Amino acid sequence: MKITTNIEKFTNPLYLESGRILEPYELIYETYGELNSDKSNVIVVCHALTGSHHASGTYEGDRKSGWWDAVVGEGKAINTDEFFVICVNIIGSCFGSTGPMSPRYPSSKPYRLKFPVITISDIVKAQIILFDRLGIHHAHAVIGGSMGGMQALCFAIEYPNFAKKHIMLASTYATSPWAIAFNKVAREALVKDPSFKNGLYDPVEIKESGLFGLATGRMCGYISYLSPDSMEKKFGRNYVQTDGLYELFGRFEVERYLDYNGLNFVNWFDPLSFLYITKAINIFDARRNFDSLEDSLSRVKSELSLISFSNDLLFLPKEMLEIHQTMCKIGKENFTRYIEIKSDYGHDAFLVEIDKFAHHIKNILEEK
Amino acid sequence: MKITTNIEKFTNPLYLESGRILEPYELIYETYGELNSDKSNVIVVCHALTGSHHASGTYEGDRKSGWWDAVVGEGKAINTDEFFVICVNIIGSCFGSTGPMSPRYPSSKPYRLKFPVITISDIVKAQIILFDRLGIHHAHAVIGGSMGGMQALCFAIEYPNFAKKHIMLASTYATSPWAIAFNKVAREALVKDPSFKNGLYDPVEIKESGLFGLATGRMCGYISYLSPDSMEKKFGRNYVQTDGLYELFGRFEVERYLDYNGLNFVNWFDPLSFLYITKAINIFDARRNFDSLEDSLSRVKSELSLISFSNDLLFLPKEMLEIHQTMCKIGKENFTRYIEIKSDYGHDAFLVEIDKFAHHIKNILEEK
Repeated sequence: MKITTNIEKFTNPLYLESGRILEPYELIYETYGELNSDKSNVIVVCHALTGSHHASGTYEGDRKSGWWDAVVGEGKAINTDEFFVICVNIIGSCFGSTGPMSPRYPSSKPYRLKFPVITISDIVKAQIILFDRLGIHHAHAVIGGSMGGMQALCFAIEYPNFAKKHIMLASTYATSPWAIAFNKVAREALVKDPSFKNGLYDPVEIKESGLFGLATGRMCGYISYLSPDSMEKKFGRNYVQTDGLYELFGRFEVERYLDYNGLNFVNWFDPLSFLYITKAINIFDARRNFDSLEDSLSRVKSELSLISFSNDLLFLPKEMLEIHQTMCKIGKENFTRYIEIKSDYGHDAFLVEIDKFAHHIKNILEEK
Repeated sequence: MKITTNIEKFTNPLYLESGRILEPYELIYETYGELNSDKSNVIVVCHALTGSHHASGTYEGDRKSGWWDAVVGEGKAINTDEFFVICVNIIGSCFGSTGPMSPRYPSSKPYRLKFPVITISDIVKAQIILFDRLGIHHAHAVIGGSMGGMQALCFAIEYPNFAKKHIMLASTYATSPWAIAFNKVAREALVKDPSFKNGLYDPVEIKESGLFGLATGRMCGYISYLSPDSMEKKFGRNYVQTDGLYELFGRFEVERYLDYNGLNFVNWFDPLSFLYITKAINIFDARRNFDSLEDSLSRVKSELSLISFSNDLLFLPKEMLEIHQTMCKIGKENFTRYIEIKSDYGHDAFLVEIDKFAHHIKNILEEK
């Protein structure tokens, strides 16, 4: 599989939904496979909160592959023998695209809290501008899970002529107060940590000394990504062997897992990107600037497929079902399908239970 | 209704499950109604994590009534015209019974982190010793929700001759890794707050300056007590009117609610009590010291009624159902009943959806 990693720089201003401007900005993106001569084989893959443009393949020296390596590749559900796949790191993120720790032109100092609030619409708009520069004006499909699914929906509504097919997994049309509450705890834990220094932290220093608030926040995120069943299977009530049951700080294995993954988070993700992207998720509402969900979905001109997971406790299946039902209600039943995958894994199923849904993606992409 | 509030002091050591000793200790408790001549009308009500002995009635000058005022009182489900109700503040708590901020005899300084880890068994044992001193050797019923339900189950297993009836609401026989994970985030947020000072905080000072870690922890608790549906009904996606949608720290109403209740928590609950009681909850397992749930439930000699709430996301209905099914399996089907209340309120239903379950409690108590 041919993989390329590229950066594009833009000096034209990006006009944001908030009325603010991002100027200049850069987007890092990765491609898999080859663009065919009539540019009809493009598939856009959109990443989630902590994801990146690195969706597939394994970098030299890395233990881990891209976040959807099991889905994107030669002979896989998104078959790179057939399709040319693009995954763009979103603005606001910390893997190479312009985000809060990027220099604030003309200064060489980072934006930090002066970075503008971005929305899913802004994130998608930047991708459309990038594709335009690459000479790509149409895609076969846009696909994403979680926040990636929000982007797919946004493509379908705001750029109805861009892609033939849209696939949302484990996502929603408007973030619920329940999901906002999880983000609240995570954001609160972060900003109240004195080491966050109101956004003036030293990025190198926090990697060395730790940033407990971000760790705690990440732990809270993990709860929302998993489920009672997946935790029961993974950890049960196993207790850390070297800890005492009657020690106040003795730990269950599930606690050790949260500690490890929470504390490690600061090593690979930026605290301010975390704040800005969770904000974008919180304020995502596909009905904004429309009268209703019916009204916004009435803009959709092509296929919108919805794949939910029965045990997703962050974005409930019924939220996806509502999109499907609304599409049917407004006479677009031929453009929509709803698939609920039975899974105990919770929200994370779209990253781990590949075998359960990959064939659906394959079928949707191959259908004429 | 006659209400008394009393403190009993014990100089005999309380031998704890951990092998440690609590000596001396005090228990504060409240009673409602009057003890009949043959002492056959006693009902023990057990409180949850942040509850207290103040289950019913309203203190002079207080806006709020006791935590189960709608259930306990004259003519109510637990009818104080008929029953003599006792509610004991558990050891480890902060409302008058001995806890981590009590003086560590013979010093006048508080235990703080030298307080021993306590278990649900210890909490129940202390109550049994108190009842013994009061000349109460039998109860008509023991009732509790959440951690109170754990106590009721513990009474049934460890003191099978004490009460005729046991009612558990919104509880479990062993805390799941899912519930432990919620407690983990809360505990972690608290202990990593520099103002916690490794347990050496000044109780007056933290009330003035705030203890953000405890606030964040409480917010995480709220998520587990509520549900997606109850949050949708209560808050929807309403945004705080004076906040800007595109301000990074602009808030949804659900966030304001969490802020308010989180920050207020330090004014009425002690951080170390929070740590010790969540520990007791985490390590609760009615199977400990037994071979299995069947084995522990085989000790039960009287009625065990289980009331769960369909949307309880902290202690799932199926956990309560398992107790019922195991009781049936070991031939105690005549001693057990399982009732699942349909509710959108989540775990908190046992405190708010009184109308939906009060008649069941009344029936159970009145059955011969």
